[in-house]
Amino acid sequence: MAVQQPDPVSPDALVDVAAQLLQRLRTRAPKVHCITNTVAQPITANVMLAAGAIPSLTTSEAEIGAFVRSADAVLVNLGTLDPERHKAIEIAVRHAAKTKVPWLLDPVFVDRSELRLDYARELLARKPAAVRLNGAEFRALSGGPPSPQAVKLFAGTCGTIVALTGQVDVVSDGERVATIRNGDPLMGKVTAMGCAGSALATAALVVGDDPFTAVVAALVVFGVAGERAASVSNGPGTFAFSIIDAIYAMTADDIAARARVADG
Amino acid sequence: MAVQQPDPVSPDALVDVAAQLLQRLRTRAPKVHCITNTVAQPITANVMLAAGAIPSLTTSEAEIGAFVRSADAVLVNLGTLDPERHKAIEIAVRHAAKTKVPWLLDPVFVDRSELRLDYARELLARKPAAVRLNGAEFRALSGGPPSPQAVKLFAGTCGTIVALTGQVDVVSDGERVATIRNGDPLMGKVTAMGCAGSALATAALVVGDDPFTAVVAALVVFGVAGERAASVSNGPGTFAFSIIDAIYAMTADDIAARARVADG
Amino acid sequence: MAVQQPDPVSPDALVDVAAQLLQRLRTRAPKVHCITNTVAQPITANVMLAAGAIPSLTTSEAEIGAFVRSADAVLVNLGTLDPERHKAIEIAVRHAAKTKVPWLLDPVFVDRSELRLDYARELLARKPAAVRLNGAEFRALSGGPPSPQAVKLFAGTCGTIVALTGQVDVVSDGERVATIRNGDPLMGKVTAMGCAGSALATAALVVGDDPFTAVVAALVVFGVAGERAASVSNGPGTFAFSIIDAIYAMTADDIAARARVADG
Repeated sequence: MAVQQPDPVSPDALVDVAAQLLQRLRTRAPKVHCITNTVAQPITANVMLAAGAIPSLTTSEAEIGAFVRSADAVLVNLGTLDPERHKAIEIAVRHAAKTKVPWLLDPVFVDRSELRLDYARELLARKPAAVRLNGAEFRALSGGPPSPQAVKLFAGTCGTIVALTGQVDVVSDGERVATIRNGDPLMGKVTAMGCAGSALATAALVVGDDPFTAVVAALVVFGVAGERAASVSNGPGTFAFSIIDAIYAMTADDIAARARVADG
Repeated sequence: MAVQQPDPVSPDALVDVAAQLLQRLRTRAPKVHCITNTVAQPITANVMLAAGAIPSLTTSEAEIGAFVRSADAVLVNLGTLDPERHKAIEIAVRHAAKTKVPWLLDPVFVDRSELRLDYARELLARKPAAVRLNGAEFRALSGGPPSPQAVKLFAGTCGTIVALTGQVDVVSDGERVATIRNGDPLMGKVTAMGCAGSALATAALVVGDDPFTAVVAALVVFGVAGERAASVSNGPGTFAFSIIDAIYAMTADDIAARARVADG
Repeated sequence: MAVQQPDPVSPDALVDVAAQLLQRLRTRAPKVHCITNTVAQPITANVMLAAGAIPSLTTSEAEIGAFVRSADAVLVNLGTLDPERHKAIEIAVRHAAKTKVPWLLDPVFVDRSELRLDYARELLARKPAAVRLNGAEFRALSGGPPSPQAVKLFAGTCGTIVALTGQVDVVSDGERVATIRNGDPLMGKVTAMGCAGSALATAALVVGDDPFTAVVAALVVFGVAGERAASVSNGPGTFAFSIIDAIYAMTADDIAARARVADG
């Protein structure tokens, strides 16, 4: 939730938060329940484990309540939105609201299906702590082209953190705007990279001081990991596992040295 | 669909088509909706992205229509044939027929389940652009042992392209027959390699001049990628991602130099 | 099933059985039907193929009977326990009992969901050949902390082989107890490693002389493969595929040289 009158956060301060993120995750080992599409499940779980979080992934209607009750945060990814997953999301969001567990919405492919678009709008109205999406999804949901200003406006309208990822990532809480210039084009050539980044941002919500800096930190870490992975990869195949190694091995100094965060 | 009186296509001409396939995919970036089993989803999506196609994978009854309507081709893989997937296939095939979007059938494991066999027969009668299967599946569907002559006969009977993969791949449209001697035994030690090859052949249908040469081209590219991957792998683990790197990096010259295609 | 009066098996004899396991699997190529969660499906299938087994993974109610009838062993993993999977397990266990096909229970996350815990108890009463679980799951099912003595008692009560995995693995049939000190901490940083180990133990039931030594052998092989993979990995990303290479390449001498098995 956006704080009413947020303190301005300098790019340097954001880099500091990013540098501390993995250490905090490794210490706290938050339980994150990830409702995500079947394509994304293996890489999502492996990114979470490499970062120090404990993922669970069931979408069974009968047991999702028990998993969410013992979770520290919930990821709601709309990929493969079958009826079972739909019901699972309803139960999860209700539980999360009741127990004040933060949840993040990843409105995968809302640009390809009216049904998902309508449902994503419904979910947005139920106050996720954050939304992570790409340019086409942003356009479908907000009705206009992506830009830092548009992200800020949309975040203000929705009353949540909006994180647009692409060549440049933009994060806003409706007041503050940060842009992140980390990452590598290979991230777009591996399936479910965006989904895995959303999962990392969800885990960050648990250990962060506020959701805005937490989401920025997660995207910085993910982008820096992508750069390191690209530097040792021969293509998207090697990249897909190298980014997991990179997250696992990454130190606060690595992050501080490579983070490229700017205001607005 | 087999052309009534196809021009004979020389092995050299087929190699040329294969050499151009990846360039065409990278330029066109076709959207391919892949209804495939959950085991195969990650590697299928990654092979598609590496080749330049844009995969989508939902099997939700409620939204598959929307995805197929905006797709350029559809893969119908019978693995994990649960009731939801069954309904998804029905909707997808109906939409594909109406909008003339080509679809490819991969009748996974029809040799292990009567139910799948019956359904595969039903689907064959509804004129997929092509079928890709292995020896055991061919035997179950056609009723006899695999051979170039048997593939040709079966393709003629079904009125579709039949692509039998194995140590040697055989493709026929009922008139022409091509055999492909690319690939590596490690391809049989990684799960869902056949499924991923079917997905590549589905994407090829979009950019090819005709389905016969398109399917041959896809199997040549996949086999050459398998050979390159094997040359840098320590086993099936490294192979599984190296083939994705190989597809991503492959040039027309690489393909032309290594393709082993023959008549009949 | 625990033999009434089992011969004592020396650690050296257990190492011999472990050393022979992969050769036996490669020769026999058992068909193993794996009902497992969607996260675990790709790595489970790839571990099975690398070891020489033939995995199938459908959970469709309509066709699971056909798959189990032609399988040599069945894995029942409770991850993602949705209604369809629940029905699939019922059919599979009934078929397995009727045809005397051995099945192994992996009660994933029973510590997180009462529903799974109750169902795991029901399944245990239906005499799986073996159960493979971690410390938290053991505590939930047995009601007490894990220890070699507790595993032995629990195995005796359940009348089945119990295999507890962790830093040290403990296997018992209620009479004999073996401890295995192979493996690497990276195995805990990759999703579904326990599930894949359960699958290997399920395949071992087919080619082993008795279920106790078969399960011990599988855990030794898996642990030694984990050590070899760790020695060539930069983190959990590279580890996830290196363990598959290691299983594929492993010889009887490798296993004999590195196995660390003890009595009780």
